[in-house]
Amino acid sequence: MTDTASSTAPELTPDTTPDSAADAATANNLTAAGNEMSASFLAAKKRSDATLAKLEADPSKFTMLTGDRPTGRLHLGHFFGSIRERVAMQNRGVNTNIIIADYQVITDRDTTEHIEENVLNLVLDYLAAGIDPTKTMIFTHSAVPAENQLMLPFLSLVTEAELHRNPTVKSEMEASGHALTGLLLTYPVHQACDILFCKANVVPIGKDNLPHVEITRTIARRFNERYAKKHPIFPEPAAILSEAPEIPGLDGRKMSKSYGNSIMLGATAEETAKLIKKSPTDSERMITFDPVNRPQVSALLTTAGLVTGRDPREIAEEIGNGGAGTLKKYVTESVNEFLAPHRERRAELAQDMDSIRDILHEGNARANAIANQTLDEVRDAMGMRYDA
Amino acid sequence: MTDTASSTAPELTPDTTPDSAADAATANNLTAAGNEMSASFLAAKKRSDATLAKLEADPSKFTMLTGDRPTGRLHLGHFFGSIRERVAMQNRGVNTNIIIADYQVITDRDTTEHIEENVLNLVLDYLAAGIDPTKTMIFTHSAVPAENQLMLPFLSLVTEAELHRNPTVKSEMEASGHALTGLLLTYPVHQACDILFCKANVVPIGKDNLPHVEITRTIARRFNERYAKKHPIFPEPAAILSEAPEIPGLDGRKMSKSYGNSIMLGATAEETAKLIKKSPTDSERMITFDPVNRPQVSALLTTAGLVTGRDPREIAEEIGNGGAGTLKKYVTESVNEFLAPHRERRAELAQDMDSIRDILHEGNARANAIANQTLDEVRDAMGMRYDA
Repeated sequence: MTDTASSTAPELTPDTTPDSAADAATANNLTAAGNEMSASFLAAKKRSDATLAKLEADPSKFTMLTGDRPTGRLHLGHFFGSIRERVAMQNRGVNTNIIIADYQVITDRDTTEHIEENVLNLVLDYLAAGIDPTKTMIFTHSAVPAENQLMLPFLSLVTEAELHRNPTVKSEMEASGHALTGLLLTYPVHQACDILFCKANVVPIGKDNLPHVEITRTIARRFNERYAKKHPIFPEPAAILSEAPEIPGLDGRKMSKSYGNSIMLGATAEETAKLIKKSPTDSERMITFDPVNRPQVSALLTTAGLVTGRDPREIAEEIGNGGAGTLKKYVTESVNEFLAPHRERRAELAQDMDSIRDILHEGNARANAIANQTLDEVRDAMGMRYDA
Repeated sequence: MTDTASSTAPELTPDTTPDSAADAATANNLTAAGNEMSASFLAAKKRSDATLAKLEADPSKFTMLTGDRPTGRLHLGHFFGSIRERVAMQNRGVNTNIIIADYQVITDRDTTEHIEENVLNLVLDYLAAGIDPTKTMIFTHSAVPAENQLMLPFLSLVTEAELHRNPTVKSEMEASGHALTGLLLTYPVHQACDILFCKANVVPIGKDNLPHVEITRTIARRFNERYAKKHPIFPEPAAILSEAPEIPGLDGRKMSKSYGNSIMLGATAEETAKLIKKSPTDSERMITFDPVNRPQVSALLTTAGLVTGRDPREIAEEIGNGGAGTLKKYVTESVNEFLAPHRERRAELAQDMDSIRDILHEGNARANAIANQTLDEVRDAMGMRYDA
């Protein structure tokens, strides 16, 4: 699990094997999953493309839920990996919802240190990137009790064996170096609460998080079958697989706060220049794009390519014998130019943190209204309304 | 797990080995638990006696949480095993809270059939037995979202290994014949929510449920240590071990709805007479109290002893050669005489079910006010209040 802010289904080590996409709940042969991976991934991709086509044809029929774990700041990887796409969805007319999954912070750690700072910085970055809080609901799940109550009925719909079958939980536990907490074991069920309380029918994810969407679909299906056969309450949400390329850290390794290799959206131009300046390269003067043999130089080229929209190979040719110094100058200038408007809006917004809190307050109020309504439906369906 | 209403920690098979009473969370050698049982039970009993002495000296300092799983009706066993004691606690001046643990119904079954009927009948029996809703808060946990939200932080405070170490969960799962659901695995954590949201510091239980109180103590302690060192939020509740004798069913077996061997508090005098009439005895005419060799006759004598306050041996001597017919006549008369006032009040209360619903509505409103306050404290302690 990454220690920086991550997608609502937390980022995973890239070699995590996704469970059968067809139905994580019924796949019971993990040893076979490796062989099935590409087939099941292709099937998932096909379904994702079909969903995307429908969404583009009639965006107003779609409710999207996505979000972040507030364990750090957003960086360039988040921007290209998810934030940009959220803004596009919002502007397309999809009913867009962004959850700040603050309880996910304690799935694998014993502290909530800096959580408020991290949460408020997420909101700043969302707004600076173009998220419009009048169109997109931004909220923290800790502020929505009725959403969290869904944990109880939902936990009854999955077996412990099914929770264990989720390959991501184990790999996250191993990555964390912590004992498996009750919350880490059950957080895919909590994610189902996040997704289903607002009846989201699309969830943008990376392929490693397919099992999370599958357990949500299983929970929705079982709830409807068991308690709401005539008038199903929950949709079975479809995954939209992210098209974003894997974006390396400046040193060619995975972006991580502990590596200090990520360009934060909210950093200053000077901090960014400094970070790029000290990022390692190799001793070869001629700049070439070769991710396998020259990961560090290539990571710098990839970064420049992303922010300029150019092909990294073309940038490499242009710099040629200019060496790492010229490359770094180009990367610094193009990143800072790209981020300048974001950073300007961000700094302006940060002048009035009360307004940022107000936006969260509004989002939480809206989320509570929706969650209360959904919980009422759930209690009615289960016959659990004795005092009304 | 019993299929009739049961104590908030559901009833267990009598041979369930309680975990070390000192700290279920740190006991990691279950094979040794058998040897330690009597020592740890004696230690728990000693602590229970000390708590009871303090409670009797100053009842107003104590908040008690107890309750039932609404899977059936209350019977004579519940009356002598717990209801009578709750009324005594209430009248002593203890802050008494009764939870109807409706989510526990689905820990081990796929349906909430008859749940409303069961819930309302529980309230009827409480009131008929002397529970005063102006003194005792009666509520259903499904109506208290802020209480249920405590599941999230609390799940992060226990490991999966600790959840597995709870001997009662496994035995309940085995008894249910169901796969272990996520809810059954984690319900001891949900019980901790039930107990801690109202800051109960005493919990009356049978000895099989000591591990449940221990996990609650562990959660309270860890929460305070981790997030509220300076101003601890949660008490570490003490168990009060029930003094009530094991009350057999009419046929000498464990009371169970499926055996049809329990006298329901709400049954009519005629239904009770019929039930006692068809209860099996043996062919020996002379009535003697001998639970080992004559379980059926002795169960009838025990029942008569409980409702009359007499020694079962004395009743046996009195009947002597009168045979099973005389015995059953005596049991029927004494049970019906004992239950007559309860049944009369119950029937009267049942005339106005709207009032019963109102009482639950009031109790739920009070529980919500308390839960919201506690959740606010928890969110403050964890730094999870961004919009205030």
